[in-house]
Amino acid sequence: MSETQKILELNAFDMTAGASGLAPATEALIRRRRAAFGPTSMLFYKRPLHVVRAEGVWLIEADGTRCLDAYNNVPSIGHCHPAVTAAVAGQIAVLNTHTRYLHDGVYAYAERLLATMPDPIANVVFTCTGSESADLALRIARSVTGRTGLIATENAYHGNTLAVTEISPSSASTETPAPHVVLVPAPDTYRGGAGGLGPRFATHVREAIETLKERGLAPAALIADTIFSSDGIFPGDPGFLAEAVAAIRDAGGLFVADEVQPGFARTGEAMWGFTRHGVVPDLVVMGKPMGNGFPMGGVATRPDLLADFGTRNGYFNTFGGNPVAAAAGLAVLDTIADEGLQENAQDTGTYLRDGLSALAKDAPQVGDVRGAGLYIGVELVRDPESRGPDRAAAERLVNAMRERNVLIGTAGKYGNILKIRPPLAFRREHADIFLEAFATSLSEAL
Amino acid sequence: MSETQKILELNAFDMTAGASGLAPATEALIRRRRAAFGPTSMLFYKRPLHVVRAEGVWLIEADGTRCLDAYNNVPSIGHCHPAVTAAVAGQIAVLNTHTRYLHDGVYAYAERLLATMPDPIANVVFTCTGSESADLALRIARSVTGRTGLIATENAYHGNTLAVTEISPSSASTETPAPHVVLVPAPDTYRGGAGGLGPRFATHVREAIETLKERGLAPAALIADTIFSSDGIFPGDPGFLAEAVAAIRDAGGLFVADEVQPGFARTGEAMWGFTRHGVVPDLVVMGKPMGNGFPMGGVATRPDLLADFGTRNGYFNTFGGNPVAAAAGLAVLDTIADEGLQENAQDTGTYLRDGLSALAKDAPQVGDVRGAGLYIGVELVRDPESRGPDRAAAERLVNAMRERNVLIGTAGKYGNILKIRPPLAFRREHADIFLEAFATSLSEAL
Repeated sequence: MSETQKILELNAFDMTAGASGLAPATEALIRRRRAAFGPTSMLFYKRPLHVVRAEGVWLIEADGTRCLDAYNNVPSIGHCHPAVTAAVAGQIAVLNTHTRYLHDGVYAYAERLLATMPDPIANVVFTCTGSESADLALRIARSVTGRTGLIATENAYHGNTLAVTEISPSSASTETPAPHVVLVPAPDTYRGGAGGLGPRFATHVREAIETLKERGLAPAALIADTIFSSDGIFPGDPGFLAEAVAAIRDAGGLFVADEVQPGFARTGEAMWGFTRHGVVPDLVVMGKPMGNGFPMGGVATRPDLLADFGTRNGYFNTFGGNPVAAAAGLAVLDTIADEGLQENAQDTGTYLRDGLSALAKDAPQVGDVRGAGLYIGVELVRDPESRGPDRAAAERLVNAMRERNVLIGTAGKYGNILKIRPPLAFRREHADIFLEAFATSLSEAL
Repeated sequence: MSETQKILELNAFDMTAGASGLAPATEALIRRRRAAFGPTSMLFYKRPLHVVRAEGVWLIEADGTRCLDAYNNVPSIGHCHPAVTAAVAGQIAVLNTHTRYLHDGVYAYAERLLATMPDPIANVVFTCTGSESADLALRIARSVTGRTGLIATENAYHGNTLAVTEISPSSASTETPAPHVVLVPAPDTYRGGAGGLGPRFATHVREAIETLKERGLAPAALIADTIFSSDGIFPGDPGFLAEAVAAIRDAGGLFVADEVQPGFARTGEAMWGFTRHGVVPDLVVMGKPMGNGFPMGGVATRPDLLADFGTRNGYFNTFGGNPVAAAAGLAVLDTIADEGLQENAQDTGTYLRDGLSALAKDAPQVGDVRGAGLYIGVELVRDPESRGPDRAAAERLVNAMRERNVLIGTAGKYGNILKIRPPLAFRREHADIFLEAFATSLSEAL
């Protein structure tokens, strides 16, 4: 199976085959989409959603159907949260410009954001997306180390730029792997084999450093999404990452924590995924939930690294750190605190995982339920003994849930892992709705 | 002079030296900025602006001073234009999600945008920034041609990603030039020497193709900002670019038009810079003015190229093409039409250039006044005979204008060219204010 086929099969409506058996209005939209975006622009679900509005944890279709959103981490504090909509609407009517003029709002936001980071992370560069952030982190790592080698996981996703695609094997680019990139197995807590997770992952990183050396290269950085989302959602035991971080530093490289997925309280245990592991990154990559959907991202780092980079490189991001983004970002930080969303992620996440584990007892094809906070992976297997991945079962379940108006996705290199990643405003009452739909879908789809 | 010094001197406040002689409130903001963003984050003007609000062509400082904005092309239809603020405020309260669900607003916008493009440009991929757009254009060009060679101009700027920085020498990265990039002299209409502009530029492109061949490489693309902004603003005579475009196509490469600067009616003569030249690009890169400050960008291209890219590469942009961006983008297109902004760019641009040319007659250090629409370059030289670039004079003029509350910048590889690029809402009455300030500043600064 080619990589392209893989991406088409990851919970995708088949645009190339066209629409049939759908409502005429939906078919018409799909034709318009295909005409404007081309046949390879991906749409979710066998029966795509036509959404017209959203609120909290609900996406509402054109016919009024309310879908429970257990997938979207961008509207992290809840779709159309009034704190963010008011902040954006208020600021965009007053001032929206770049950072080459002084503006106190953007410094106030930077200060608040940096206050959530451990010493010595004390500078931030604002961008517009997680991809731009990951790309800038690579630029800084290469510049300050004077090296090019990069270590990432086998099915990682860090973004969509040319440089970041090289360390994003899950994005299904079929370009020849870049010689300066070495991929290591993700810290798989289900199929990873014997031995401690931490030592095993660190051993892979040390081997990758050796591989780079054999190629005449030295490592600039190890980059890891600290919850290993696209690899299959492997939070692992808190702390296991520390040994690999020590290994890259022993080799003179930096540790880049990609917090686009675990950051902003998603794991419930901490504001940042790296905090779970008791490590302090050299570079922190931020994106998706940062502005609850307002396009913004950032790289937080040590002042010495940024100053060193700045002596050799200009960097300016036109939209990055504009006053509207700062207002949106501040509203997100306020709301996480005011509404106890980190605590809720922990509480509701545990509740939902417990419920899923209980249902799994009677479903042998559910091989594993794992997660941290409101990021949960459910592994579908052909049988619990072989643990052979069952992508088809995962696809059936995702679509069965969609027919019950509950939205989830898939992840992992075999595409057999359910990705359950609702807005942090997802409460126990929503978990109950989810679990009821899941119980029915299990009996139908497996 | 190092590249870093160059970037610091391009109309920059010297953050490394710190603040002195400024209002205490301004000094405090600069300290906070430096603490959060580091010492190399660039701030404009010897006396930086502390802006608190904006409207139309005016930026308003904390003390109430109204500054005439003749620099910012992002708020292209005017700062805080009510059409965009209403569109954003309205949509962000209703729905803001990604493009993997159906949403008619984003197709309506795509259709409107593509209707402004010539056949066979009929597909668009939405991104969040011009940098992401340029990066994606490079990915597509490399993928569909199976080649890596890139040709750009000597002081080009196309964006800030790792790959795009390689073709952005003006961004002052001191990395070793990439072997797959060959830089050609910009089509300099002032210092370019004898012979026709079109043949001269095309000859440089053909030589670059030969240089790539000598390196064992073939050209994937020629990329040009069709008004050559950071090279020094060289619109040139309409049509001159056609011969270079033919040359790259003869060699099997693509033509990428970077419309971040000239696009969206800036040149007055057309909606797109490439239209001035009677050429149809293979890839069109869009950014800055697209959403009047809402972070959005895009790549428009031929369906065959996008489909071919899509068979080998996944591409998804989380925030790209969200309903809020679509609403902002649609409001921009509507306003350009409703308020006659292309015609105004032509009319006011010509009026302003004529006024500048008249003042230049008595100022021998003004070597050249040129431009298209509301993008004007004024070249400062030591004397009209040698045409030696006078960066210091340009800096003095920029800061003298700033003291008169009129905002402009500088451009060009010598940093001696005034960059005059106001919002398209800049009318003759604003040009009159500008010209009065310019006359006084000329007598003071030169």
